Amino acid sequence: MGTTLYVCVTCRAGEPPGEDRARPGKRLAAALAALPAPPGVRVVPVECLSACSTGCAVALAGPGRWTYVYGRLGEADAAAILDGAARHAATADGLVPWRERPEIFRKQSIARIPPPEIPAP
Amino acid sequence: MGTTLYVCVTCRAGEPPGEDRARPGKRLAAALAALPAPPGVRVVPVECLSACSTGCAVALAGPGRWTYVYGRLGEADAAAILDGAARHAATADGLVPWRERPEIFRKQSIARIPPPEIPAP
Repeated sequence: MGTTLYVCVTCRAGEPPGEDRARPGKRLAAALAALPAPPGVRVVPVECLSACSTGCAVALAGPGRWTYVYGRLGEADAAAILDGAARHAATADGLVPWRERPEIFRKQSIARIPPPEIPAP
Repeated sequence: MGTTLYVCVTCRAGEPPGEDRARPGKRLAAALAALPAPPGVRVVPVECLSACSTGCAVALAGPGRWTYVYGRLGEADAAAILDGAARHAATADGLVPWRERPEIFRKQSIARIPPPEIPAP
């Protein structure tokens, strides 16, 4: 099993409510869905990642891997998000070397969570 | 299996580096360790949860459960953090009713991540 890329589709990213345009989270999810998913990456829409003050947000998770959450993203970041997800999927533990991460992942980290079994620090 | 409470022990929480006092993250971990762990809760120190701008940070995770990350915490929050962790451990899916969450969890959420299998929204 590879990496699941969760996309918050309820995110407003600070935009005022309006019925004439889809929410920023929905638009980001559509931009991701419009591109080919990299091998080992599954894109899953989610209602609220509780990162409302730093939206739009996505999370990368997979068995045995560190989970990562990134924020302040938009439609223009879709290709870079999928590139970062592919790199996460290509590792056994989710730890992509710093320099190989997309710039948005280096600069817009919200949090990371260890896999269930990690050695004590 | 219950809930793992990850505590970032490298967090400086904005304090300037100094050798005369432990880092805020270490102090929070010590405050948590000084209290009895609730049933089903395991406290695990972690080096960096990558939530540096919203530290001190903790994360709650467990099999089949939503993962939650909380920030802007300190030693004084230790008892409330353990109370919230106990409530997370007492659920099957990690979804504690809003009103039953400690106030720090209601107000200081950084992110949440779904368990591996969630129904599509």
